[in-house]
Amino acid sequence: MEDQPTRIMLAVNQSTINGYPHASISCRRAFEWTLQKIVRSNTSGFHLLFLHVQVPDEDGFDGSDSISASSDDFKDQNPRYNSRGLQLLEFFVTRCHELGVTCESWLKKGDPTEVICLEAKRVQPDFLVLGSRGLGPFKKVFVGTVSEFCAKHAECPVITIKRREDETPEDPIDD
Amino acid sequence: MEDQPTRIMLAVNQSTINGYPHASISCRRAFEWTLQKIVRSNTSGFHLLFLHVQVPDEDGFDGSDSISASSDDFKDQNPRYNSRGLQLLEFFVTRCHELGVTCESWLKKGDPTEVICLEAKRVQPDFLVLGSRGLGPFKKVFVGTVSEFCAKHAECPVITIKRREDETPEDPIDD
Repeated sequence: MEDQPTRIMLAVNQSTINGYPHASISCRRAFEWTLQKIVRSNTSGFHLLFLHVQVPDEDGFDGSDSISASSDDFKDQNPRYNSRGLQLLEFFVTRCHELGVTCESWLKKGDPTEVICLEAKRVQPDFLVLGSRGLGPFKKVFVGTVSEFCAKHAECPVITIKRREDETPEDPIDD
Repeated sequence: MEDQPTRIMLAVNQSTINGYPHASISCRRAFEWTLQKIVRSNTSGFHLLFLHVQVPDEDGFDGSDSISASSDDFKDQNPRYNSRGLQLLEFFVTRCHELGVTCESWLKKGDPTEVICLEAKRVQPDFLVLGSRGLGPFKKVFVGTVSEFCAKHAECPVITIKRREDETPEDPIDD
């Protein structure tokens, strides 16, 4: 079992403040946390799986199959390269490539909560890491939390990483 | 930051079927999962913190301070060694010692849900690992789930590891 790397799935999304192709503050935090606290120096022991779920018709893109390893892989995706979702994934894949952590990434369309749970069931990662804005109960009612839904419904273990307070924008609903 | 090991807190409890001093199926599963999927070969990168919360007056023991490193440390706990909780902790500390993973363990008294959250706040681990029996919603109503409460209320990230189906006893409420 030690031969097979631990497969960690990260659901990543785009920022609501800075516009495309920036990753949201909370998913960047979840990613950095995973590297610092779990992967650490054991880069060969882990394999990261990046999923981005696009809301249908967001930019007229139909999803992509798995893309691995390095940012060069994204160059071959022309003319689909225009997709903002692919640019988001490239951010994470490039960072993994620099660090020597193997990874895969792919895009899906649909309701993020449902698609994340479905993909977790299909891909069967060892666990799922989700970023969260860490909103209080009052704010949550209006915003909805993908992480809470997935923590409850995903078939694999889920760990939710809250956005750091010093990274919280003026309006905490922004991310 | 890489110099400091990742501190993982595990709340461990006793079996309801085999009697003392056995660890419950679900907490043993959470422990083995942590070793296999997180610690892996990077034994110096992690520091485990074992907490056992005893229900008050369970065996007339008043709690212990932190005990580290090896099973020999438990020998010095005489005459408190009779405590079943200490024997439970010895199981985990001995296993860590064999593997070369540093650890600490301690006992507290009280309501497990509250004490786990309070201790997580005090000790500030990087994350908390909890075992769960993985009962369906119907069974949960009658049993209550420590893991669900802590996942919601602990101030650190929480990952819940379900008991494996092939380890589930005849009555799934047993553990």
